[in-house]
Amino acid sequence: MLSTKFAIPDVIFGRGAITHLAQCAKRVGAERVFFVSDQGVEDSGWVGLVKGMLRANDLECVYFNDVNSNPRDKQVQEGVEIYREGKCDVVVALGGGSPMDAAKGIATIVGNGGEIKDYEGANRIMRPLPPMIFIPSTAGSSSDISQFCIITDMERRVKMSIISRSLVPSISIVDPQLLVTQDRSLILAAGVDALAHAIESYVSKLASPFTDLHARNAIQLIIANLERAAEEKDIEALEQLSIASTSAGMSFSNAGLGDLHALAHALGGLCDVLHGWVHPTLLPSVMRYNLPSCMAKMGEIGRLVTGLNTGSDRDAAMMGIEKLEQWFEKLQLNTKLQKLVPNREDLMHVCNMATHDACHLTNPRPASAEDLMSVCEEAW
Amino acid sequence: MLSTKFAIPDVIFGRGAITHLAQCAKRVGAERVFFVSDQGVEDSGWVGLVKGMLRANDLECVYFNDVNSNPRDKQVQEGVEIYREGKCDVVVALGGGSPMDAAKGIATIVGNGGEIKDYEGANRIMRPLPPMIFIPSTAGSSSDISQFCIITDMERRVKMSIISRSLVPSISIVDPQLLVTQDRSLILAAGVDALAHAIESYVSKLASPFTDLHARNAIQLIIANLERAAEEKDIEALEQLSIASTSAGMSFSNAGLGDLHALAHALGGLCDVLHGWVHPTLLPSVMRYNLPSCMAKMGEIGRLVTGLNTGSDRDAAMMGIEKLEQWFEKLQLNTKLQKLVPNREDLMHVCNMATHDACHLTNPRPASAEDLMSVCEEAW
Repeated sequence: MLSTKFAIPDVIFGRGAITHLAQCAKRVGAERVFFVSDQGVEDSGWVGLVKGMLRANDLECVYFNDVNSNPRDKQVQEGVEIYREGKCDVVVALGGGSPMDAAKGIATIVGNGGEIKDYEGANRIMRPLPPMIFIPSTAGSSSDISQFCIITDMERRVKMSIISRSLVPSISIVDPQLLVTQDRSLILAAGVDALAHAIESYVSKLASPFTDLHARNAIQLIIANLERAAEEKDIEALEQLSIASTSAGMSFSNAGLGDLHALAHALGGLCDVLHGWVHPTLLPSVMRYNLPSCMAKMGEIGRLVTGLNTGSDRDAAMMGIEKLEQWFEKLQLNTKLQKLVPNREDLMHVCNMATHDACHLTNPRPASAEDLMSVCEEAW
Repeated sequence: MLSTKFAIPDVIFGRGAITHLAQCAKRVGAERVFFVSDQGVEDSGWVGLVKGMLRANDLECVYFNDVNSNPRDKQVQEGVEIYREGKCDVVVALGGGSPMDAAKGIATIVGNGGEIKDYEGANRIMRPLPPMIFIPSTAGSSSDISQFCIITDMERRVKMSIISRSLVPSISIVDPQLLVTQDRSLILAAGVDALAHAIESYVSKLASPFTDLHARNAIQLIIANLERAAEEKDIEALEQLSIASTSAGMSFSNAGLGDLHALAHALGGLCDVLHGWVHPTLLPSVMRYNLPSCMAKMGEIGRLVTGLNTGSDRDAAMMGIEKLEQWFEKLQLNTKLQKLVPNREDLMHVCNMATHDACHLTNPRPASAEDLMSVCEEAW
C-alpha cells in the first residue's frame, strides 16, 4: 500500500447542531460573515433562521444567493466582488452541493486571486482561503466534508473539478433536521449521489483502510435507509442518511472518485442535468466495466447491497449490480441515459471530456474514450 | 442524540509514510524544528533517520529527549526553555505516548505561557499552539491523533488529563514500519491500551456514530492481529494494528474514555507503572461494573471479541469479557492488580483520585470512589 492521506473538517453532528453556528463562526474569527445559500433553501425557512442566529450574536451578514443548480464561473466571480465590497472575513454556506461549491469557488478567488478556471485540476491552490463553515441541507454532495469543488465553465460548457486540501471547510455542521424540509425527489437524488461517492471511492486507486471503513458504512446505511427517508421523511432514517453522506464524503474526499463522476461532470456541463439523476443511468454499467480490476471489492459491495454473504466475489458483485438496478426501478428513478441526453451524437464528446476530468485518474480500470462510449451505449 | 464533535488531524498513513516528514514540516512553516523523542526510540535508529531527513531538507533541528515513560511536569518546563532558546517554530515528536505527550505539554506552554498544571481538565487552552507533526512508534497511545495529553504532576503524584481541540496535532504520520523495531512486550502494552481506548470510548457517554464506527473497527482489528504482531512481528499484522490504533484514537479523542482510564491515570501517578499494563488487570472488572448501563453496546463488543453472533446482549457481553480474560492469560499478561500496587492501603486514595480525572466524566455508569473500590477489589 502506498502512503495515503486522510483529512476531514471538524464535524459537529446531530439534531440541533445548527444552533452551534454563531459560536463556531466566532471561534474562527468572524465579524462579517459572507453567507451563501439559494432560493430553494430560502423557501424552506432555514436561510431566515441562519440570518437570525448570526444577527442575534452580533455578526454582520452579507447574503449571496445567485447560485444555479450547477454553479457557474460567472456566479463565483460575482460573489467574489460582493465578498470584497462587504469586507467579509468568514464564509458560511447553507444548502446542497451548489451553494457550497459556489462558496468554495468564491473563497478560492478571495484567497488566491485570478479566475476560478486557473485552479482546475488537483492541488493548484497555493494560498490559504478564508475560514469556511458549511451546513449541508441535503445528504448527498458532502461538499461540506470534501476537498472537491465543481464549477461550470460556461464558455467551454464543462464542469471543472477543482481538488485541494484547502477546499476542506474548517467546520461542517451536519444537522439531520434540515433534511425534513426536502422533497422526495431531492432526497433521492442526493442519496443516490452519496451512494455513488461511496461505491466509486471504495474501488478507487487511492482507497485506504480509513476511506474503506467509511465507504462501507455509507453503502450499508444508504441501502438500509434511503427509501424510508424519501417516502416517509422518517427522522431516524434521515439521520442515518446524514451519517451515510458524511461517511461517504470522508471516503471520496480522500480516495477520489472514478469514471462515473467523470462522465457525470461532462454530462452536467453539456446538458445542465441535476447531478444525482446521472447515477441511476450509468452506475451499473460503470460497475460492470470496472469489475475485472476490483473483483474482491466489487464482491464486498455486492454483499453489502444484497445483505447476502455467500458466493464468489464475481457472483456477489453481479448480484449487487442487479440488486441496484432493481432498486432504482423500485424507487422509480430513470435508468435510461437517453432521457438525459438530447442528442446521441453528443456522447462521444462527453466521453472525450470525461477522460480529461480529475476523477478519471483514480478509476480502478484504465478507460479510453471508446471504452467509456461502450459504457454509455450499454446505459443508453 | 446530542450534537457531537468529530475532529482529527490530517493522517498520512502507510509503509514509508515517514519519508513525507520534511515536506509536511515545510508545509506548516518549519524552519527550526523542535524534535522530541526518547532513549528507546534512539536505540531503534529512527531518531537518527529523522534528524537526517530534516538536515537533508535544510531544516534546523533542536533535539530534546529528557522524557520519562510517564512524562513529568518538570520535563515539560525544561523542554519549554530549550524550545525558546532554540527559537523553534514547529514541534515534531517521534515515539510512544510519552514523547508525544511531553511535546504537547511543551507546545501548550510555548503558545499559552504559565505552567502545565494550569491547563488540567477539559478545554482550558485558549491560545494557539505551534504546529505539531507526530510520528507514533507504537500502535497504542494514539496521542498523534487525540486531543489528550497526560502529564504527571510530581508534587501531587497524579497524572493530569489535559484535553483540548488545540492538542490535536496538525499532521499525524503513521508508518507501520516503525513497529518492526518494537519488542514483544511494548507491542502488547500498546495494543492493549488501544483496545482499552476502543472499548471505553465505544460505551462512553459522548460516543457518536462516527466514533462508534472507528471503535468497532479497532476492536475487531486488535483481537485479530495483536498476537501475531507481537509474537511474529509480521508486517501485515503490524500494519493492521497501526490502523486499529489510529481508529481507536479517532474514537476516544472525540468520545472520551471512562473509569478504566481514570483509575489507570491515578495508578500511574502513584506507582509509575507502564500505562498499558494496568488494563489487563482492570478492564474486565470495569466492563462488568458498566454492563447495566450499556448492555446493547457491551453485547456488540462481546460479539466482536468472540466472533459469535448469537445470544442475548447480556450473554454476548459476558462471553466477551470472559474471552478477554482468557486472551490476556494466553498472552501471558499479568491480570492481578496486586502485582502493580505495592500497598493495598493505597487503593482508596487511587479510587478517590480517579473520581477527579476528566475521563471519569464520560464513564457510562456513575461511580463513586466506593464503587471503584469494589472494582479494584474484584481485580486485586
